[in-house]
Amino acid sequence: MVEGDPPSVSRLEELGRDECLDLLAHGSYVGHIGFVHDGRPVILPVNYLFDSDGVVFRTSAGTQLSELDGAQVAFELDDNRPLVHSGWSVLAQGAVRRISDENEMDRLRRGPLRAWAWRSADLWFRMSIDGISGRRIAED
Amino acid sequence: MVEGDPPSVSRLEELGRDECLDLLAHGSYVGHIGFVHDGRPVILPVNYLFDSDGVVFRTSAGTQLSELDGAQVAFELDDNRPLVHSGWSVLAQGAVRRISDENEMDRLRRGPLRAWAWRSADLWFRMSIDGISGRRIAED
Repeated sequence: MVEGDPPSVSRLEELGRDECLDLLAHGSYVGHIGFVHDGRPVILPVNYLFDSDGVVFRTSAGTQLSELDGAQVAFELDDNRPLVHSGWSVLAQGAVRRISDENEMDRLRRGPLRAWAWRSADLWFRMSIDGISGRRIAED
Repeated sequence: MVEGDPPSVSRLEELGRDECLDLLAHGSYVGHIGFVHDGRPVILPVNYLFDSDGVVFRTSAGTQLSELDGAQVAFELDDNRPLVHSGWSVLAQGAVRRISDENEMDRLRRGPLRAWAWRSADLWFRMSIDGISGRRIAED
């Protein structure tokens, strides 16, 4: 990359919706959840599960995540290879709802999702996918 | 991790400010910048430089990042090891200002920071570190 290159030539390739959903399902264990707390943006990493109805995460009472019922949030995941300045990222936006249906919670408890940060975390949340986009930077 | 464990036992260890700043300086190439756009949280990954005055990133005209002059943002970086459910994360909060001082831009242009997404990216921004916190999850 030389300063004499043409200005503003993007290396970003937009990903299609299906590829974004596939990366959400299979591309990562940990995403970043973005929300507004006390008027200021916050980002926290969270391990998650993706199913056909959205992104599921769990937490414990008293955490910032536990206060997200009803909130509009961003959910981002990415991977990158610094040596070759390449990578991809996916950004989903949607609303968080606390899961209160006992049957659904029973099913989720038997599933693979564990909250890394807590020995026990029995507040379950689901984020809808109201919009999703992604981009990739190919190797130099 | 067993469901019969005591409820709400955290595995999170809070990091001190010095350790957070050290991770910001040396722990990653790519961070996540969180902001509000059209009333909705957004997270974008960005490669960055950290110096004593804050987090520096560059972009090109027309991008969402280029509109952040004056904005309150979050800046998060993390690393994780899924197999052992461990990792760390650092969250900084502050305000973004566009850099307009020609001497500073000259110095930055000669430095190591390249914008992966753009062949040329001559809009420079600096985020102040108004607050910083971090946490670690040790191996199981």
